[in-house]
Amino acid sequence: MKSAIDLFEPIRIVLVESSHSGNIGAAARAMKVMGLSRLVLVAPRAAVDEVARARASGANDVLAGAKLVANLEDALAGCVYAVAATSRAREISPATGNARQAADALLQHAGQGECALVFGNETSGLTNEHVRLCQAVATIPTSDTYGSLNLAAAVQVFSYELRMSMMASAGIALRPEPAGITDVPATLDEIEGLMHHCETALATIGFFDPANPKRLLPRLRRLFGKARLEREEVNILRGILGAAERRHERDR
Amino acid sequence: MKSAIDLFEPIRIVLVESSHSGNIGAAARAMKVMGLSRLVLVAPRAAVDEVARARASGANDVLAGAKLVANLEDALAGCVYAVAATSRAREISPATGNARQAADALLQHAGQGECALVFGNETSGLTNEHVRLCQAVATIPTSDTYGSLNLAAAVQVFSYELRMSMMASAGIALRPEPAGITDVPATLDEIEGLMHHCETALATIGFFDPANPKRLLPRLRRLFGKARLEREEVNILRGILGAAERRHERDR
Repeated sequence: MKSAIDLFEPIRIVLVESSHSGNIGAAARAMKVMGLSRLVLVAPRAAVDEVARARASGANDVLAGAKLVANLEDALAGCVYAVAATSRAREISPATGNARQAADALLQHAGQGECALVFGNETSGLTNEHVRLCQAVATIPTSDTYGSLNLAAAVQVFSYELRMSMMASAGIALRPEPAGITDVPATLDEIEGLMHHCETALATIGFFDPANPKRLLPRLRRLFGKARLEREEVNILRGILGAAERRHERDR
Repeated sequence: MKSAIDLFEPIRIVLVESSHSGNIGAAARAMKVMGLSRLVLVAPRAAVDEVARARASGANDVLAGAKLVANLEDALAGCVYAVAATSRAREISPATGNARQAADALLQHAGQGECALVFGNETSGLTNEHVRLCQAVATIPTSDTYGSLNLAAAVQVFSYELRMSMMASAGIALRPEPAGITDVPATLDEIEGLMHHCETALATIGFFDPANPKRLLPRLRRLFGKARLEREEVNILRGILGAAERRHERDR
């Protein structure tokens, strides 16, 4: 049976533009107490200082090992699955669920590759651009009259749900994989490459007007997210786009 | 259907001899964000001061309404059921469960009378004398190597589990509906129409050879199945195929 460390090793917690040192430290403690250790800070607006270390308490190793990156793309490099923790529904959002469902999904995907759970800034949350880089959105249910969950408290709830899910699933971890197609999930970089190819190829064949984009690309991104694209599927779709482009170039 | 306020009204959160003002404030916020409002402080060792109010944020009403009592007996006055939140098993303890089970039990008993959920001091926890005054003991599972859960984080996890339990028992769907898009699933006829269109259009642009089909069409069918295509998505995909075909016909 895999240990908690093995199951959690592929999972990184990403804090985007956090504004309070205390929250960064408390998030590290919230992670470690549930067995998580990989923290990524995207362009933090607060220092990892004495306040952060005091709130981290015995989780100063998690804080000291935190990776600093400039943007969310860098934070998600190499990931096959990313969940955006948000407090509100989006007009066009990928698959949506609650923290419990997200924990189950993250653990499942962590068996296949690197995964990320992404939290936004204390005041403004995640932007739509941030959310678009993720395959799923997850919310923690809150009171109708007061929904202001502290950032570290949100990290605590998700980390707790990951541990509860891990404990429930650890017993069935030995179940053999279904035979047949080997599902190698596409990485986020590969999905971004596909999205860029869609944009150029669909413009070339006249289906997409970059000057009047409407909602085509977000709709395609959502569709790909729902399908949890595999690497070979990305290759097939890019093959189709390439064939459509080339035929046009050759015929012209 | 009872509202959250009705269901939670009989439940008081009791903090025994808390040592940090910040934790008292953060606990109030953790409660309010999940819909709880009744806080009881037993002989606090820290003041309800500016630090507490800052961490309480929008939950200053919960903090201001907190009842101060001298001992746990007074805090439990009138209760029919009390759960002690502890981090360790006791030599002699009442019924034991985890936070999720405790939340279910608290909600059940809250239908019969006043209930309490009791948290101990940050360093020393609850004494055996405190635990003996309660009908059940509940723990939050933590890492084997680091189990130091912050007091307010523990209040957050239990309050969250109370809300999850309340939503389940009230029949509220746990899965929030994605806003915006109305998901009209594609019918099987529409999927078959799309598959047929793929076959002809991909042959036209030279990506598919009907004489040597290999596994392309089954792979696409599988992808569409995973995505659980909606009607509008079928329309978008057929639009793309049509644009690729027309471009080819026109250019030829």
